[in-house]
Amino acid sequence: MAATSETPKMRDRMTTYIKTLQREITSALNTLDQDHSFKEDHWVRAEGGMGNSCTIQGGKVFEKAGVNISVVHGMLPPAAIQQMRANHSEIDYDPKSGKHLPFFAAGISLVIHPRNPHAPTMHANYRYFEIDHPPTEEGGEAKVGETPMAWWFGGGCDLTPSYLYEEDAVHFHTTTKAACDPFGPEIYPLFKKWCDEYFYITHRQEARGLGGIFFDDLSAGPHARIPEVAKKPNTPEEIFAFIQSAGNAIVPSYLPIVAKRKDTPYTDEQRRWQLIRRGRYVEFNLVYDRGTKFGLQTPGARIESILMSLPETARWEYMSEMGKEGTEEGRLMALLTTPRDWA
Amino acid sequence: MAATSETPKMRDRMTTYIKTLQREITSALNTLDQDHSFKEDHWVRAEGGMGNSCTIQGGKVFEKAGVNISVVHGMLPPAAIQQMRANHSEIDYDPKSGKHLPFFAAGISLVIHPRNPHAPTMHANYRYFEIDHPPTEEGGEAKVGETPMAWWFGGGCDLTPSYLYEEDAVHFHTTTKAACDPFGPEIYPLFKKWCDEYFYITHRQEARGLGGIFFDDLSAGPHARIPEVAKKPNTPEEIFAFIQSAGNAIVPSYLPIVAKRKDTPYTDEQRRWQLIRRGRYVEFNLVYDRGTKFGLQTPGARIESILMSLPETARWEYMSEMGKEGTEEGRLMALLTTPRDWA
Repeated sequence: MAATSETPKMRDRMTTYIKTLQREITSALNTLDQDHSFKEDHWVRAEGGMGNSCTIQGGKVFEKAGVNISVVHGMLPPAAIQQMRANHSEIDYDPKSGKHLPFFAAGISLVIHPRNPHAPTMHANYRYFEIDHPPTEEGGEAKVGETPMAWWFGGGCDLTPSYLYEEDAVHFHTTTKAACDPFGPEIYPLFKKWCDEYFYITHRQEARGLGGIFFDDLSAGPHARIPEVAKKPNTPEEIFAFIQSAGNAIVPSYLPIVAKRKDTPYTDEQRRWQLIRRGRYVEFNLVYDRGTKFGLQTPGARIESILMSLPETARWEYMSEMGKEGTEEGRLMALLTTPRDWA
Repeated sequence: MAATSETPKMRDRMTTYIKTLQREITSALNTLDQDHSFKEDHWVRAEGGMGNSCTIQGGKVFEKAGVNISVVHGMLPPAAIQQMRANHSEIDYDPKSGKHLPFFAAGISLVIHPRNPHAPTMHANYRYFEIDHPPTEEGGEAKVGETPMAWWFGGGCDLTPSYLYEEDAVHFHTTTKAACDPFGPEIYPLFKKWCDEYFYITHRQEARGLGGIFFDDLSAGPHARIPEVAKKPNTPEEIFAFIQSAGNAIVPSYLPIVAKRKDTPYTDEQRRWQLIRRGRYVEFNLVYDRGTKFGLQTPGARIESILMSLPETARWEYMSEMGKEGTEEGRLMALLTTPRDWA
């Protein structure tokens, strides 16, 4: 469907969607803890745009949780444009011109670290990115209804337990798969594999967790990681519908797991193990995560929102026992070195 | 002095020195805690070389402390050689050849995290690096007494308190300066400035701590950061003497500070602040530290030794109060944004 001046632009539709989704997620999570609820923190980006960070710290159920949205725009420098052209040949740009191009980005990002070592950490992120035609000579933005020069969606979700409950992994993956399946039977398996590859701590030779889905550069037309014969969401409408399906699956995929595990008794040793696993989480986010690295390098970025993904407490021991065979810790480790199909 | 077959090679002299220094440092620190002493962990690198990691974990005085030495050798891939040629034009290498060159590296590295928030963290590292002529056609190593193709020393030390005691900063810097001064009056000021620049957490716009000295690529001849007119240690003998002077200053610069602060009473709030500052330490080491980044990217590297620098526990809060004016925490923060001359 071609955009007309009557159709709201995708940037506005995505903005409305993530605002609603943020409210739904925080309301749902609030039901699990009578004493602690999300605090809102609205902020404005001097360079253009706004955000809303909803957080819990030191809760009984959620040791640290953040559900952020951000809607930002500005001018993209040549180096960033060049990088993006690798996956988006439709970006009409002469690198020799040295020109900046307008961009727009809207996304929701959440990381939930429950206190109980039996309740897993969960992360999800869905985002829309646009590169627009340069402003006309007279100045001013691209007109309403004008299609962007390039646009794509990206995102994913993943589950990071300290202790393995197979039924939880099955529930998380089954719910996520069901959100993907209407858009093509290959979508979940392809994005599940991508997730296993992405959330990998190379220097530890172990996965961050039990995976979920991960994808980027999802737009109309062929995609480098999706075979041409596979069915995929292909128009802006279809892809936005897929994003909403995945976004709406966040709560049902995760909330029942926390509800079930939040009051499981645990020992100091199990808490220690959880904090060591959180150390690994910090290692992944600071050393490998593209979004974090990009954020830390961006002048004027809101560091507090970017690093909200880090756990409240993390622990590093020298040569700590990382899960012997036959222990509960060892059962998890076996799966972090050899991913399994859960759905 | 030209090396002859009677002169032990620098690689052997440096190896002997760091082994002795490691023993001296661990013995000295052991005197501060009757109940916990350093454990030795000798290891062998499959690709060539060995190391000895001495550690304390969960001590009363030292929450986590590591004093490592490593002596490794192997073949350096073309990309690494190319990088090193930027500062070492004497490396005779044709990038088109695709050849690997033999390297040797010996170093001592320590990070001491005391438990008491009033006792500062200290880090030091001194290392010797050599790139050698390729083996002869018949194979075999470079002959004894043969001079390497390129060689240099690097290192430094720095102090990272959670609470500011000016007299401690003055003591640390004064002792370090005294170790540098015999080798040229410009050495300490130049390397102090370099340290302030290096241990800087760009995304936080704050220094990791109160600095010390930092230097790299110290060899015979001109140095990019030392003015030609300034006196510098210039021969292998002089530079090795400087390294020993700096290495020998580690204990006297730091031990009296821990001895003075280890039993200072502290509150839960002060402990919390210390853990937040340790989160910053983790951020620096994982995001910026060259040695850590290089180590994590090196196949076969000993990750446990590289990441021994991380504190036992670190903490991240969203929008935590980072030291208001007029508070003890604020006094430290003021110095992390504006370095001071301490000696």
